[in-house]
Amino acid sequence: MSNGSIQRVRTVDEIYFIPGRPFSCMRDAYLVGAGQSAYGAFPEESYRSLFRTAFDAAVDSVPDEFDADEIDEAFIGTLGVGGRQLGLSGPAVTEHVGLDGVPCTRVENACAASGFAVRQAVQAVKSGMADVALAGGFEVMTDMSSDATKYWLGVSGETEWERLSGTTFSGVYAQMASAHMNEYGTTREQLSRVAVKNHANGAKNPHAQLGFECSLEDAQSAPVVADPLNLYHCCPTSDGAACALIVSEDVVDDYTDDPIRVAGVGAGSDSVGLFQRDTYTGVPASRRAAETAYEMADIDPADLDFAEVHDCFAIAELLAYEDLGFCEPGEAGDLIESGATELGGDLPVNTSGGLKSKGHPIGATGAGQVVEAFKQLSGKAGERQVETPTRGLTHNVGGSGGAAVVHVFERQQEVSAR
Amino acid sequence: MSNGSIQRVRTVDEIYFIPGRPFSCMRDAYLVGAGQSAYGAFPEESYRSLFRTAFDAAVDSVPDEFDADEIDEAFIGTLGVGGRQLGLSGPAVTEHVGLDGVPCTRVENACAASGFAVRQAVQAVKSGMADVALAGGFEVMTDMSSDATKYWLGVSGETEWERLSGTTFSGVYAQMASAHMNEYGTTREQLSRVAVKNHANGAKNPHAQLGFECSLEDAQSAPVVADPLNLYHCCPTSDGAACALIVSEDVVDDYTDDPIRVAGVGAGSDSVGLFQRDTYTGVPASRRAAETAYEMADIDPADLDFAEVHDCFAIAELLAYEDLGFCEPGEAGDLIESGATELGGDLPVNTSGGLKSKGHPIGATGAGQVVEAFKQLSGKAGERQVETPTRGLTHNVGGSGGAAVVHVFERQQEVSAR
Repeated sequence: MSNGSIQRVRTVDEIYFIPGRPFSCMRDAYLVGAGQSAYGAFPEESYRSLFRTAFDAAVDSVPDEFDADEIDEAFIGTLGVGGRQLGLSGPAVTEHVGLDGVPCTRVENACAASGFAVRQAVQAVKSGMADVALAGGFEVMTDMSSDATKYWLGVSGETEWERLSGTTFSGVYAQMASAHMNEYGTTREQLSRVAVKNHANGAKNPHAQLGFECSLEDAQSAPVVADPLNLYHCCPTSDGAACALIVSEDVVDDYTDDPIRVAGVGAGSDSVGLFQRDTYTGVPASRRAAETAYEMADIDPADLDFAEVHDCFAIAELLAYEDLGFCEPGEAGDLIESGATELGGDLPVNTSGGLKSKGHPIGATGAGQVVEAFKQLSGKAGERQVETPTRGLTHNVGGSGGAAVVHVFERQQEVSAR
Repeated sequence: MSNGSIQRVRTVDEIYFIPGRPFSCMRDAYLVGAGQSAYGAFPEESYRSLFRTAFDAAVDSVPDEFDADEIDEAFIGTLGVGGRQLGLSGPAVTEHVGLDGVPCTRVENACAASGFAVRQAVQAVKSGMADVALAGGFEVMTDMSSDATKYWLGVSGETEWERLSGTTFSGVYAQMASAHMNEYGTTREQLSRVAVKNHANGAKNPHAQLGFECSLEDAQSAPVVADPLNLYHCCPTSDGAACALIVSEDVVDDYTDDPIRVAGVGAGSDSVGLFQRDTYTGVPASRRAAETAYEMADIDPADLDFAEVHDCFAIAELLAYEDLGFCEPGEAGDLIESGATELGGDLPVNTSGGLKSKGHPIGATGAGQVVEAFKQLSGKAGERQVETPTRGLTHNVGGSGGAAVVHVFERQQEVSAR
């Protein structure tokens, strides 16, 4: 495939896809606001102050008036890198923004922590137990040595056979990249094109940590981190926070007359250790999450106008193309080369800059993807705006694929207009 | 109050109770099975093998046939003591029992981790996104030095002003005990009576870690841990796991003809640091959680037949009596003396032995309380069985009250019969 069009994967291996039960969701959930801090290295900030920035930005982004006292429940994602407040780190940030009293639950699925926090906020709203739910996340990662960072990233990998034997996250993804190159002929240049595209987008995002463009030559000639992955094939470590506000259909009209519906939600899990999976060239948890979300939203990947996918390493974005059904297995290298996933292409991917250029403060990443979806669907993405999008997808992966979560957001005015 | 009867607290300080919105929950959730490992020190076990034991016990406890393949979603509570698998520790145990693929989310609110996991399972079922949800928890705490244990418990306390200045959990609860003694005349003997009662119950529970009786003299003469709390006023550190199975009203008939409804669910949060609260003689998060759960269940505390409350320290059980409305503020000392909360009293509390005698493997505790509720309501509590109970409550606290969650379980056959 090289013409840049998007096809649905018709068949998902039975072994990875556990067919969902029929959806009987009774109440719709809507995204009415989302905001984030800048991502980067901020020695003068704390996890609480970063969270405050994101929370205020989310509250301010709601089109109509929004009073924080209307929040019924909160879900906060963080891995707790650094260990400074490992327990009760959810209430530790919600009390800081004046929400003490409101039920708050910390959610953790490694790098998918706040993607799952968003999912929990949706469940809380759909359950009828909350009308207004906050989903947020944060991480502070740049205030420690690189050895300490390696430890904290490692705790999301499999302990006994991966971390304790010295396998790093770059090492795990390097194994996936090698397998994909061997099986499908994917090239280093195709990996580098992911970096070039995402830096081009991130250069248009004032919140991006590495908000500069890079050339294919830059990306190709960077020093090796874990062969075949080089520095430009790896995301940075980051500080940052992000928040999203999810409300029920019963109250959405109080907050906006341009509602964005959470049309699809899907999640999957898998063996935490890569070595225990049957495939290195795909992430079964992502496939399951995407299939479920598409089924709930009653759409195909072709119905999407943009996507924020989990590109912790360049190979992860290529795997996402295939797992999310943007192309057939093995064709992701062609798809990035075709330009279809660039701004202006058929399906722009990681318009925010992605984890690669925008940054990856672990616990903030999933909610931060939702911030970009909100901006795009609200027409507030500035220089990187996709033209009048109807639907966007977010895709957040924990570890090397031990968990994954996918959301489909849909602008109702555009749905009606089409 | 000294007649052993149970009264509702009529007024909850406005400052602590944020009135809930009307409940519009659309689908009922039911508890159809629950099981646990023994609690204790098990050097030959791992967190995975303990979880397997609890999972199998929960599956076996379902009255009609239950196939683990029917589980749609899982929520796993753990603090991650020891740090061996801090990230993705939910999927790490669900893959071990053959549930890889099924969405799994780790939930953490310190010692209330799996109480909140049960709450999330209820929300998932009520949301319509799952028909069968697993809620579980685990912790391994006995394989490290006491200094390391102190660190891991400390991370659930407030970091900057409590943990880093040397305040331990026993120290925090000792401050609450001192305040209660000063304000209400509560005595050390009343604290010791909590231990005597809970050990009497735990001696009847084959899963209890400290399953022996203790006399009032034993409890009174134990060495001081943090004045005024002595060794018998403190729960042990423990290894263990527990699981509960929550299903929707649409499928409950497939699993039992004696359904136990999750009639009420409530939660609250608060400042993580005790020093930032306006009161030391109560836990506002517990009050809010209880008020919400009673309102949803449309009951008063007088309608309860038993309760499992969070007695990490003896003072915590006395605070719970007041926060949950079993007596007026300041009267908990009289209530324990009256015998009303003993087996055979008006409202037996901690029939399992509680955290004090049964044990407190942090992440397992909340789900473990639900195991006792299930046993009591199913008539399977053996020597500690309460006579034909209709309703039971579980109450799980994170840290010194940064989070709390309350559930009310109701046996439908008894409700109809009354």
